[in-house]
Amino acid sequence: MNIRFYNAKILTLAGDFQILEGELWVRESRIDYVGEGGIRSDFKFDREIDARGNLIMPGFKNAHTHSAMTFLRSYADDLPLLDWLNTQIFPMEAKLTGEEMYYLSKLAILEYLTSGVTANFDMYFCPEDVTSASIEMGFRTVMCGAISRLTGETDYALDLLEGYYQKYNHYHERIGFCLGFHAEYTAPRPLLEGIASLAEKYKAPVYTHNSESLSEVEQCIRRNGTTPTCYLDSLGIFNYGGGGFHCVHMTEEDLSVMKKRNLTAVTNPGSNAKLASGIAPVKRMVDMGIPVAIGTDGPASNNCLDMFREMFLTTALQKLKENDASALDANQVLYMATIGGARAMGLSDCNTLEAGKYADLILIDLHQPNMQPINNITKNIVYSGSKQNVKLTMVNGRILYENNNFYVGEDAEAIYKKANEIINGKR
Amino acid sequence: MNIRFYNAKILTLAGDFQILEGELWVRESRIDYVGEGGIRSDFKFDREIDARGNLIMPGFKNAHTHSAMTFLRSYADDLPLLDWLNTQIFPMEAKLTGEEMYYLSKLAILEYLTSGVTANFDMYFCPEDVTSASIEMGFRTVMCGAISRLTGETDYALDLLEGYYQKYNHYHERIGFCLGFHAEYTAPRPLLEGIASLAEKYKAPVYTHNSESLSEVEQCIRRNGTTPTCYLDSLGIFNYGGGGFHCVHMTEEDLSVMKKRNLTAVTNPGSNAKLASGIAPVKRMVDMGIPVAIGTDGPASNNCLDMFREMFLTTALQKLKENDASALDANQVLYMATIGGARAMGLSDCNTLEAGKYADLILIDLHQPNMQPINNITKNIVYSGSKQNVKLTMVNGRILYENNNFYVGEDAEAIYKKANEIINGKR
Repeated sequence: MNIRFYNAKILTLAGDFQILEGELWVRESRIDYVGEGGIRSDFKFDREIDARGNLIMPGFKNAHTHSAMTFLRSYADDLPLLDWLNTQIFPMEAKLTGEEMYYLSKLAILEYLTSGVTANFDMYFCPEDVTSASIEMGFRTVMCGAISRLTGETDYALDLLEGYYQKYNHYHERIGFCLGFHAEYTAPRPLLEGIASLAEKYKAPVYTHNSESLSEVEQCIRRNGTTPTCYLDSLGIFNYGGGGFHCVHMTEEDLSVMKKRNLTAVTNPGSNAKLASGIAPVKRMVDMGIPVAIGTDGPASNNCLDMFREMFLTTALQKLKENDASALDANQVLYMATIGGARAMGLSDCNTLEAGKYADLILIDLHQPNMQPINNITKNIVYSGSKQNVKLTMVNGRILYENNNFYVGEDAEAIYKKANEIINGKR
Repeated sequence: MNIRFYNAKILTLAGDFQILEGELWVRESRIDYVGEGGIRSDFKFDREIDARGNLIMPGFKNAHTHSAMTFLRSYADDLPLLDWLNTQIFPMEAKLTGEEMYYLSKLAILEYLTSGVTANFDMYFCPEDVTSASIEMGFRTVMCGAISRLTGETDYALDLLEGYYQKYNHYHERIGFCLGFHAEYTAPRPLLEGIASLAEKYKAPVYTHNSESLSEVEQCIRRNGTTPTCYLDSLGIFNYGGGGFHCVHMTEEDLSVMKKRNLTAVTNPGSNAKLASGIAPVKRMVDMGIPVAIGTDGPASNNCLDMFREMFLTTALQKLKENDASALDANQVLYMATIGGARAMGLSDCNTLEAGKYADLILIDLHQPNMQPINNITKNIVYSGSKQNVKLTMVNGRILYENNNFYVGEDAEAIYKKANEIINGKR
């Protein structure tokens, strides 16, 4: 499909964010033109959409999630962290089959579309099932390795990770795979050394859960004499970059490592608040020039997959932490939620709205009371925006969500029904 | 209009929240029946709505706001607090006319409807204009007195407050008025003593901004030798109850006063975070049995009027503050946002879904991915709910918002246009 959006505001990047008034053309999967219009295309449009002055912007990149955990959304809240994890979450997760993960990931993808998310950086056990859901629905997914001591023997786990890396990076145009592992505290040293070897072999970045809770950091110091970031770096894990999910409890030395290796900190403020893990030092990271992206974390801990809420939390919690209402400007947060996430996921070809990039974009309804009056559109998206403002979500040139309807080749009600059957079958 | 909702889940209160499956009937402005159905009404329905298994619940009560400040939404963000207030907000507010406040309040009411809010506790200078907007649109508003030293001479300000109190409590069935003043730091002692006399005369509760920032509390201690809460109480202000907006920096003695006088703390977590004011001790208040309600504060500081975001923040920030993931159960927060707010506003006749109460209710769409699977509906509303889930908002038996359309007697676009003209005329 070739689609022309006209009468649009378009969020572009030229140093800072800029808003251009004009047209955006999509030719098959890519953006063909962004400009003021008034010219003719050399190809035929299948559809012409009057944007009515609304804003076209890059889709959000959800840079850390566990999609298949939708089945545990609001299943066990308001519990102390360890009770929650050990008595509620882990035992239920252990019962999941691959086919169930496939359906549960579909539910998450529906939710991403309502929130204007066009790609997810997904850490889960079975890339087969999660990627099948994404491919079928027209979505874009970068999987992150999730091996740990629970995966099996060290050699088996490393072979699995390498196999996934090779397979899913040449699998489908909308699928990618990053080297990754669950966390320092679930990975014995030989496993970590093996991961470092894979990073070296493929000159590849590595991602992992890092310093989410204080006790995790303290235990690592007891075991290894240093923090997770420094320990992993000492093993060569980050020689080719990568980053950490959460990064809440970071020392100055940890931040120096992140800066030196150009690692991305993926912040998850909703989950970190709800689980009382703490507030990541995001402003300090930005001041140091450390790249930051934003993720929702999984729906068992957050509980929704809503980048608007995460954006507000990212800046609001920094203002509280720093005791400074000017801490972390909203435009910096919007950058993290779009371009910052794309960078973490290796999606440099669908991060901004420019000719030649993949058409991963959303249409934000400004004709809603929370967007009026039009004082400052980008700040308003971060401080006042909500899923209600997402009129349209397009991935790879295809409209998957428009005016509250899904176009993903499957009925949403059928997916809800399946999700309920799965959780009801395990109670 | 008489309206029958059938095939509904209905949130009722019987000790805790309960969810009943059945029907809810509205007869003119009041709820006529809540139950399992299977019986016949003795009156004719004008409309029968299949709720499709969705949830009918009491509308949210926005227990602290300044509706007319919509024109400054996203006008000046990411500034230090005092710069923001003194160089941006106060000078712009001073230019507002009553007619402008009327239109700007209409914009806020549209936004309340999208967020499932059915009543606002509104503190602003001109009750005439704000209440006119509310009455015309079919909304419910309780105004709160906002006098200060800026209102004029003490006697003039007190006469104005008493006049408003008498007028707006016998004005319209959907309008009320509470005694109130801006804050301790803008009220000279004779004014406060006069307000205490009015409280005595009318046996009436009094509301005010209280202990929003640390410097406000410190300055009060310097001036009066004690905190705002203790100082105001010593003057008799709270002899007949009332409460405080914000209540962020509270001593144990302050909390004892609130408990003794049965004062409501109206928490405003979004505004307090965005302005770096701090986190109110909400869990401590709940543990002590102090009534709590939730407000958005005005759109210049928040910047949206979204009770879903406020609910999540209310509990998430307590979990961070208390370093305990089990702090402040979601159901307690849902209570604050509905019944707690109604209590603060004196709206005991539209707080719950029972026969005889005013029909102030909303329909929550559970057929959305963020509400699936159905594990725990009330916790899910707090942790995963969003404005996108509000299918219908009814005030006083009248549907004012349904399926993204407003039924308020005026075109939303005309209100947006007016709001833009107002701000553009003042730049």
